[in-house]
This record gives sequence, structure tokens and C-alpha cells, in this order.
Amino acid sequence: MKEFELINRYFTGRGIARRDVDLGIGDDCALVRVPESCQLAVTTDTLVEGVHFFADISPRALGHRALAVNLSDLAAMGAEPAWVSLGLTLPSIDAQWLEEFTDGMHEIAEYYNVQIVGGDTTQGPLTITVCAKGIVPQGKALTRSGAKNGDWIYVTGPLGDSGLAIEARKQNWSIAEEHLENANKRFHFPSPRVAAGQVLRGIATSAIDISDGLLADLSHILKQSGVGAVIHADKVPTSAALNSLKNDDIRLQLALAYGDDYELLFTVSDDNKSILEAKLQQYGVEPVCIGQVVNNDGKLELLYHNQTMPLPNIGFEHFS
Amino acid sequence: MKEFELINRYFTGRGIARRDVDLGIGDDCALVRVPESCQLAVTTDTLVEGVHFFADISPRALGHRALAVNLSDLAAMGAEPAWVSLGLTLPSIDAQWLEEFTDGMHEIAEYYNVQIVGGDTTQGPLTITVCAKGIVPQGKALTRSGAKNGDWIYVTGPLGDSGLAIEARKQNWSIAEEHLENANKRFHFPSPRVAAGQVLRGIATSAIDISDGLLADLSHILKQSGVGAVIHADKVPTSAALNSLKNDDIRLQLALAYGDDYELLFTVSDDNKSILEAKLQQYGVEPVCIGQVVNNDGKLELLYHNQTMPLPNIGFEHFS
Repeated sequence: MKEFELINRYFTGRGIARRDVDLGIGDDCALVRVPESCQLAVTTDTLVEGVHFFADISPRALGHRALAVNLSDLAAMGAEPAWVSLGLTLPSIDAQWLEEFTDGMHEIAEYYNVQIVGGDTTQGPLTITVCAKGIVPQGKALTRSGAKNGDWIYVTGPLGDSGLAIEARKQNWSIAEEHLENANKRFHFPSPRVAAGQVLRGIATSAIDISDGLLADLSHILKQSGVGAVIHADKVPTSAALNSLKNDDIRLQLALAYGDDYELLFTVSDDNKSILEAKLQQYGVEPVCIGQVVNNDGKLELLYHNQTMPLPNIGFEHFS
Repeated sequence: MKEFELINRYFTGRGIARRDVDLGIGDDCALVRVPESCQLAVTTDTLVEGVHFFADISPRALGHRALAVNLSDLAAMGAEPAWVSLGLTLPSIDAQWLEEFTDGMHEIAEYYNVQIVGGDTTQGPLTITVCAKGIVPQGKALTRSGAKNGDWIYVTGPLGDSGLAIEARKQNWSIAEEHLENANKRFHFPSPRVAAGQVLRGIATSAIDISDGLLADLSHILKQSGVGAVIHADKVPTSAALNSLKNDDIRLQLALAYGDDYELLFTVSDDNKSILEAKLQQYGVEPVCIGQVVNNDGKLELLYHNQTMPLPNIGFEHFS
């Protein structure tokens, strides 16, 4: 089967049809319309077998995840997701695999009102590159560079569950079935904080999504904003699953430094703290304040029950 | 070296800075502006080692080619290229390789006034996915579906040189050094017909770029336009390099069915034939009329010196 036939079979005529798509899959390019007074937000992320996921991941989870990690970047800018392009490289054509993979991708696309407008399917080692496009009102996007001295630092939800899912498997940790299931679900089917990102527009001073790990991603904000921060490690929210780990050090490492969480990390001025909490709660998001921006030569200080603690290793090699 | 440092080193602060890019590499998304009254054209193409190029291709050629094949899709819509995102998967970090690859990519990007606005670099088998974005005046894009009975069928330049380069190497053909060099140059450094595509807007009735081979790509236009065609194989333009092949059958196969040419194939009404030729010639493009659209139940008829000839096999496995 040739590649274009493949694309036709699994993508054409499926999923939602947005009114701003003038031409979808099936020509040299897709044609879409960006509303006046909006900017186009563009991001791209690649998933490679053995680097971003285990070889035995379910195709449905992989389809979900490939889109979710890209939508998470749009969320971090406060953009509304609109259109995605898919570069899909497959070792061979397996109809059932493709069916489930595209099911997973279409499910999350429909949920977030996103249309897959084009792609390229090629033969080779399993690699998925998604390029997601969204729209954001002119000048209203959240960036990494707006954090100010005195701003409060928040996350949108519990961290470390993906790390728990991955390490529990690699190291054969004995964990209650229910906890493992919950952690695996968050790892395989991450929920990009799309609504939260749009709520943060005009209120938060900076934002980023947590993909590399809380401290690594915070350091991007600090560097690009030219500020420092104090983080209270004991305030970082964690799930019941992660809390079931008895080893404090490991639990903290997973929450602070593992990544793949896809929660948002953001800063907000003292004046806007209450309105922001109230607005996010309307969307079912419980933001947690974990620290404050300070002017200390860009340093990141980590406290645990008000005692200074050393920074854990930043950046894991998850699948090696 | 972590992936974001890698991106920083080879991409940030290099290449052109377009005025419609509000935020380039370095945040969760890039932010760009699409002019009012324009549509956004989006395309994506993946290159995989051993499928789209030989393992020993020069990194400079690979960087050029990865961008060129995407710009060719924008050209086929009559779009003006603007921004690209890059998904780059590399087996290891080789500073010299990256330097040359990004040189090749930046050279063609600058030539076409395109800015690389973001990317993701990951470890894995060599795979390159580019997502190219361009702009086209609302309603003016060229599609595959507008060919009408009686329209003339054109190509923008000689076909079959990439096929010659690839097959000469695989099959050890003995070809004059000069011819081989020219064919290799066209294969490694294809020139997307960006200016020609924009000239065709409002004049041509349909267009496509020749990537799968003249007849395969023509069949897309015929199917989507609901028409048939007569093609004169002896009128299909070929280079001196290809003409140096003595075997007529092989020469014709390469020109008609091999692909990787990245010339445009388009249709134009009899009324607009002369103005189109004149306008393209102003841009140094010599279009060649190779046949005509006919109403014959969607059939593609191939003539050689006015005698019916069988269709060659469509679609090669170039690198297997």
C-alpha cells in the first residue's frame, strides 16, 4: 500500500471538521484561516520509541500522547489549539495498530476541537512528529520571560506520576495495583491544561508546561525572566499514588525533577493571586502555590519544611 | 548535551528574522502573524535514512533537501513560504554534522525568506520532519481539483534527473562525469518552484509538485478534478544528462514515473496559455506543454510520437 493511500484510509473523513479549515487532507497543503487580531502559535514535538515511550506502549496511548504533549505547549502559551500536522514513520503497515493509534489521536483531537489537516506517512523506525498550531489574541500570549520579583509560583496539579509509572516498571517497585494504574494512566493519557492556559491569559505573568521536570522548567522561566526563586518542596502537590512511596528522597526527585507531567507552571503577581485561584477553580483546576519569585541573582533555592535542601539531579534519561 | 542546548547552539540567532515573527525559537511555541485576507498554507514531509536518501548523503544536502521538499508543496499551492518547524531525530550528536546540516538548511531558508521558528531535537534513528507554513491570498490557492476539459498540461522543467542520480549509483551505470554531476546536483539540491507557483495563481486551473513521478502526480489531479488526459511522452522535457542514456525505455521511465523532481505540473485554459508562458518566462522558467485534459472517463492516455504506449510502472522503491 502506498503512503498516500494509507493516509487516506485512516485520516480522511475522520475527526472533526473545523469551519476555519478551507482545505484539509488531500492536496499539497492544507488551507486554514487565522482570525484577525490573533497570532498563530506553532509548536512541534517528536516521540521516538525507546526515548519517549516503551516499545510495548498501546497504540491508542501513543496516538493520544503524541498529540497531548503538543497541545500542552499550546496551553502553556494560552493558545487555543486548532490544527495539527502529523509526520508518522512506521516500520511496517499493521492495520490494527494504525486503527488504534488513529483512534487515540482522533479522540483527543475531538475533545480539544482540533483538526488533523495533513501528514506524511513513511517507512522507517517508529517516530512520531506532530506540529500543532493554535491561535491566541494578539499580544496576549503567555511567555517564559514575564516573571517579576515578588510573583507567586504555581502549578496546576500533582507532579511525579509519570516518573512513578516509568521507574516502577524499570525497577520493579512493589506498588499497590490501584496506585500503579493511576500513575500509568497519567503517563499514557496526559491531559494538557488547555482551558487553564487560556484562563491564565492576562493574569499570569509567565507560564511553561512541565515536560523536563519542575525545576528544569522553572529554570527556563527564571533565566528568561532574569529572576530567582524560592521553592518549598514540601508544598509541591503529589498524588496518593506517589505518596504511597515510602522513600522521601525518591518521592521528591520524581515530583521535582522527573518531568512528563504536562501540568502548567506559572507565576502571578500578588494582586492577581486571588482572582486567578477563583477563575481556575471554576474550570475544576486546583492551583497550588509552591514558592515565590525573588531577586537573588537568578538563583533557585529549594526549601524542605523551611530548611535549605540540595537540588536533585535535573533531567533523567527515562528510557535508556 | 541536552536537547534544548543543542537547539540553542545551532538554530538560535541564526538565519533571517522575519518581521511577522513576534516570538521565535526559545519558548513553548513560536508566535507569528498571518496577514489579513490571507490563508495559512500548511504542509509536512518526513525524510528517513534509507527511504528518502542514502546513508552517506552530505549533511548540507540533507538540510537543503528537507526544507526544499516542503517548500515545493507550498509552491504547488501558490503560497509564499514563511515559517518552518523542524523535528530532528539524530543517532548521536556530531558537531560537524550538525554545523553542515544547519548550514544547508539556513542557506535555502534565507534564499526563500523563510524563518525556522522552532523545533525538537531527539535521539534516535536519523529522521527529519519539517512542517512548513506559508501564506496565500484568500481564495487564490492552486489546488489539484480545478482542471477542466480542454486545459493544457504543463511542467516547469526537465524531469528524471533524480531518478538518474539514484539508479546510476545503484546499478553502476557508466555515465559521463559531467552528466552524473548535474543529475546529482538536482537530486541533492532541488530547487522548489516557489516564484513559479506564485505566478500561476489566478492563471493555472490546477497544480501539484512532482514528487511521486509525473504520471502518479498527474493522476492525483485527474482524480480530484474528475477528468482524463492525453500526455505526449516525447514532449516531456529531459536534461542533457538524462538524454545521454541510450536506452529509450529507461529514459522514459525515469522521466515519467520516477519522481523526486520537484518541478510543478499544472493545467491552464487555452485562453490563458500565452499569458502564462510569457509570465513564467519573465521569471526564467520555460514551461513545456506535454498534453491536454480530455473528458474520457478519467483515463490517462500516453502517446509516444502519436502512437499509444503502455503506462510504465508507477512508483519506484528508490532506496530499497
